[in-house]
Amino acid sequence: MKQALSSCLAKIRELHLDAFLISDPLNIAYLTDFSQGADGYLLVSSDAQLFYFTNFLYEAVARQVKCWKVIAQKGNIFKHVAGQIEKLGAKKAAFEPKHIPFLEYKKIKESLDAAGVDFYPAIDLIEKIRAIKTKEEISYIQKSTLITKEALDFVSQADLKASTEKELSIEIERFLKLKGDNEVAFPTIVASGKNSAYPHHVAGTSPINKNIFLIDLGSKYYKYCADLTRVFFEGKISTSVRKIYDIVRKAQELSIAKIKDGAKASEVDAAARGFINKKGYGKYFGHGLGHGVGIAVHELPFINAVNEESLREGMVITVEPAIYLEGKFGIRIEDMVLVESQGCKVLSA
Amino acid sequence: MKQALSSCLAKIRELHLDAFLISDPLNIAYLTDFSQGADGYLLVSSDAQLFYFTNFLYEAVARQVKCWKVIAQKGNIFKHVAGQIEKLGAKKAAFEPKHIPFLEYKKIKESLDAAGVDFYPAIDLIEKIRAIKTKEEISYIQKSTLITKEALDFVSQADLKASTEKELSIEIERFLKLKGDNEVAFPTIVASGKNSAYPHHVAGTSPINKNIFLIDLGSKYYKYCADLTRVFFEGKISTSVRKIYDIVRKAQELSIAKIKDGAKASEVDAAARGFINKKGYGKYFGHGLGHGVGIAVHELPFINAVNEESLREGMVITVEPAIYLEGKFGIRIEDMVLVESQGCKVLSA
Repeated sequence: MKQALSSCLAKIRELHLDAFLISDPLNIAYLTDFSQGADGYLLVSSDAQLFYFTNFLYEAVARQVKCWKVIAQKGNIFKHVAGQIEKLGAKKAAFEPKHIPFLEYKKIKESLDAAGVDFYPAIDLIEKIRAIKTKEEISYIQKSTLITKEALDFVSQADLKASTEKELSIEIERFLKLKGDNEVAFPTIVASGKNSAYPHHVAGTSPINKNIFLIDLGSKYYKYCADLTRVFFEGKISTSVRKIYDIVRKAQELSIAKIKDGAKASEVDAAARGFINKKGYGKYFGHGLGHGVGIAVHELPFINAVNEESLREGMVITVEPAIYLEGKFGIRIEDMVLVESQGCKVLSA
Repeated sequence: MKQALSSCLAKIRELHLDAFLISDPLNIAYLTDFSQGADGYLLVSSDAQLFYFTNFLYEAVARQVKCWKVIAQKGNIFKHVAGQIEKLGAKKAAFEPKHIPFLEYKKIKESLDAAGVDFYPAIDLIEKIRAIKTKEEISYIQKSTLITKEALDFVSQADLKASTEKELSIEIERFLKLKGDNEVAFPTIVASGKNSAYPHHVAGTSPINKNIFLIDLGSKYYKYCADLTRVFFEGKISTSVRKIYDIVRKAQELSIAKIKDGAKASEVDAAARGFINKKGYGKYFGHGLGHGVGIAVHELPFINAVNEESLREGMVITVEPAIYLEGKFGIRIEDMVLVESQGCKVLSA
């Protein structure tokens, strides 16, 4: 049995649950090695019975999933889910409250109420397991990071015909998909000139200002995401841009130096934020320092000023300090870091 | 005020609601002309006060949304949403039960309970408005359909270097994105040879069998989707394939002939299904005949054997009969059709 599934079962037993219903497509992909047609539910019983409920259209694909009993239905899937929970003789079942629409919850809950089964929310049960990566997962993330770095080389070296943000983002995504999965980790941000001051800018019809443009991109490889940001310059970099760039770069170095098993997320954030504050730019760095990366591009742990949790060996996180000067430009430098027992490894070095 | 928003307000008043909370990103995009950073909520009061709650990171983008008061917050957005509903003096508010995760519902519900505000599920309130397209929406869908047809021409004419399903799907998506929005309507299906027998096949590493391959693709243009399927052949088409192709083509013609304002969805489905049944292939056509297309690639109305609702002028639907012969091949032909008062117009003709 997959390690992820064993950890999930251990957690179910620890919480004295009889069954756990999984509705998040990413958690389904994580537990089944199955990314396609994740339109459905997993049901895991405390005695390790495994069910995958899906639409009948996906049946042929779903049959590829080993060790899961596939229940492919036309129409009302909720009745079958609730019916199976009852058939297991479950008294206590749990669900994923962040990942089930109210209406689906209600339909299942009503059937379970009638059968006298308690139905509890269990927050982040699988997400916490996902935060610590296995060796196999780390190898996929390394490969995904490598592809993403190659795409950055492609941008800096190729004689690109792309002349707008949108055209460049399309060429980048084509590159990432040819080398990785059919889909990218997230829509590629190409933010040219003043647009670089918006952390979530959407690549638009602005012509690329080669003086300064920011690219935030990520491949997926065997479902595992990468997430990197680089700022590109052409010609002489102005003193004001250079100054901000150096502050952000130094802030990133200071944070990375703090990362190891046991370090608090808030302390890692503070190393970068404290330095940016000291330089007088604290209010231009509005978001957290970083986040976990895996099957989801944003997942546990979140590295920010308020998360007091400790990092653990095997976590993979981004470190992305930034300074956004609205109306002028923004600098964000984002790398992927593997937490190790005595320090860390920058996967995107 | 946008027509969509007026229709939404009329519905809110008809249901005697004081406020309606919208959490579906597509409904948010529909009402606001805003597709970016749809990470948030809209709140519409019966006296036409309009609020857009979002994460502070999206504030600069959100400010582009006219007529909505933007409330951009760090952290707990639910408190602000509930607080605003109370501030409006609402006694009856509604939410979208298909589109709000249980946990978010619960947080808002608890605050509203404490304030004595009733909080009701309202299913498909906006979706039903979306089903009937305005002239402007139809023009976007026409353009999106045109781009999608051009991509099909590109596949049949270009000397493609793509040799696998995946490579071809990547080149198609690049083409669609260069001419349309930054994103496509759905992941492009390229199903070669036997893979064409799976309606939801995911483009993989199979080499393209030029004898027979199926492509299901769609552009987005100004947020509006297209959805077309064609089967490509090279060389002589075998008698058995030709026979199935002709049945599917004829079934499509029979259904399209039934489409007009007032026709029941089930009757349109029956025209194709009855013919395929008569030819002895009924059990190889497992899914519905079609679906509405708009901001979502699958939306109301659904054209199947059980939907007794009548089609209305201004609806845009797909007509996609199919026969899937597992282990051999599948034929699906999908076109986009605009429902008119006395008949219909095949947008993809």
